[in-house]
Amino acid sequence: MSFEARLKELGIELPVPPTPVATYVPAVRAGDLLFLSGVIPVQQGKLTVEGKLGRDLTVEQGYEAARIALLNALSIVRTEMGSLDRVKRIVRLVGYVASAEGFTQQPAVINGASDLLVNIFDEAGRHARIAVGAAQLPLNSPVELELIVQVS
Amino acid sequence: MSFEARLKELGIELPVPPTPVATYVPAVRAGDLLFLSGVIPVQQGKLTVEGKLGRDLTVEQGYEAARIALLNALSIVRTEMGSLDRVKRIVRLVGYVASAEGFTQQPAVINGASDLLVNIFDEAGRHARIAVGAAQLPLNSPVELELIVQVS
Amino acid sequence: MSFEARLKELGIELPVPPTPVATYVPAVRAGDLLFLSGVIPVQQGKLTVEGKLGRDLTVEQGYEAARIALLNALSIVRTEMGSLDRVKRIVRLVGYVASAEGFTQQPAVINGASDLLVNIFDEAGRHARIAVGAAQLPLNSPVELELIVQVS
Repeated sequence: MSFEARLKELGIELPVPPTPVATYVPAVRAGDLLFLSGVIPVQQGKLTVEGKLGRDLTVEQGYEAARIALLNALSIVRTEMGSLDRVKRIVRLVGYVASAEGFTQQPAVINGASDLLVNIFDEAGRHARIAVGAAQLPLNSPVELELIVQVS
Repeated sequence: MSFEARLKELGIELPVPPTPVATYVPAVRAGDLLFLSGVIPVQQGKLTVEGKLGRDLTVEQGYEAARIALLNALSIVRTEMGSLDRVKRIVRLVGYVASAEGFTQQPAVINGASDLLVNIFDEAGRHARIAVGAAQLPLNSPVELELIVQVS
Repeated sequence: MSFEARLKELGIELPVPPTPVATYVPAVRAGDLLFLSGVIPVQQGKLTVEGKLGRDLTVEQGYEAARIALLNALSIVRTEMGSLDRVKRIVRLVGYVASAEGFTQQPAVINGASDLLVNIFDEAGRHARIAVGAAQLPLNSPVELELIVQVS
């Protein structure tokens, strides 16, 4: 099954890709690697949720925020490449989690993105991953994702 | 116009490249990608400004610090490649901003680097970007930049 | 001398590679670049040390933690490639250090990984490096490393 078909089967509609608010671009391709700009859980230009894990939000809310941020990333990939079917491999995901003192479950939060990647892309979605706690993130976002994708 | 000529037109002189203070090197090339070590706003071996955004420094001071750090990065690129004219594309910039509790304008700070990249390299300077808040940075620096550049 | 022989000469035995605890994999290869997942100083499934630099741990303890985390990374490289002798170049290391307020010696901590890389791989071990302070890290780890390796 194609990745676009799989997305439809899962009932997922990708959002309009987020617009960079400064002098950078959503993604740059170098050879067969597509480097994406950081994405946060915005929908229609607004954060769906704000604040830090371990203080303002539960792990479940963080998981959902990571999932929404990932949809923005995939929307960028589709816009750049024309179709998700040109994804050859999800190479690497860095997940930054805005973390209050003592919060150490960054991996459980970033699973919201990782699980969806594997659900959509199956073996091609199995990526290297880094989950890290950030002091603060842009606009008070709870998560920010950075993706490198191998494309054909 | 060549990038070196554009730099001259802008009246910018690159500093002497910073020297790593440990067992690493300023940059490593793999294929046509040049991976740079982290750069901070040092001039002649000294930080031009210290502390955290949202407490010790204004956004404008952070913007200027990001600009100075970027000049150090470009100085490394020139030293490695012989000339900035061998830059094919600025691929990706990660900007870490030392952030006090509640500071969420990391993008406005890192614009100090992004704006200069586009000013010098025009279309080739349009990069993917990630702006993140760090708890602390080396030497109490307010910003640290990591650059990946495609070279010819 | 081969890198595997050098490792033996140094009296270093690599641990069993850490197992990802979610839907990601230890490493992904794209072209001749091997992108590794984040590694922390676990031995036999347990962190050897916990907490933040500048509060719970000395720089020396952090240095040792970075060294142990690096052994986990090298263990992943060997498992993926069959032998460390297929390392062509250590390209880039990002070192995240869990940092209490005011701690600014991230580079001295990450030297625990950098020094070992150069000790084992000599010139091929000289890498680009970024050292950053994180608010928190998974499982309350004091350090997390991310490695990109060029392989043959």
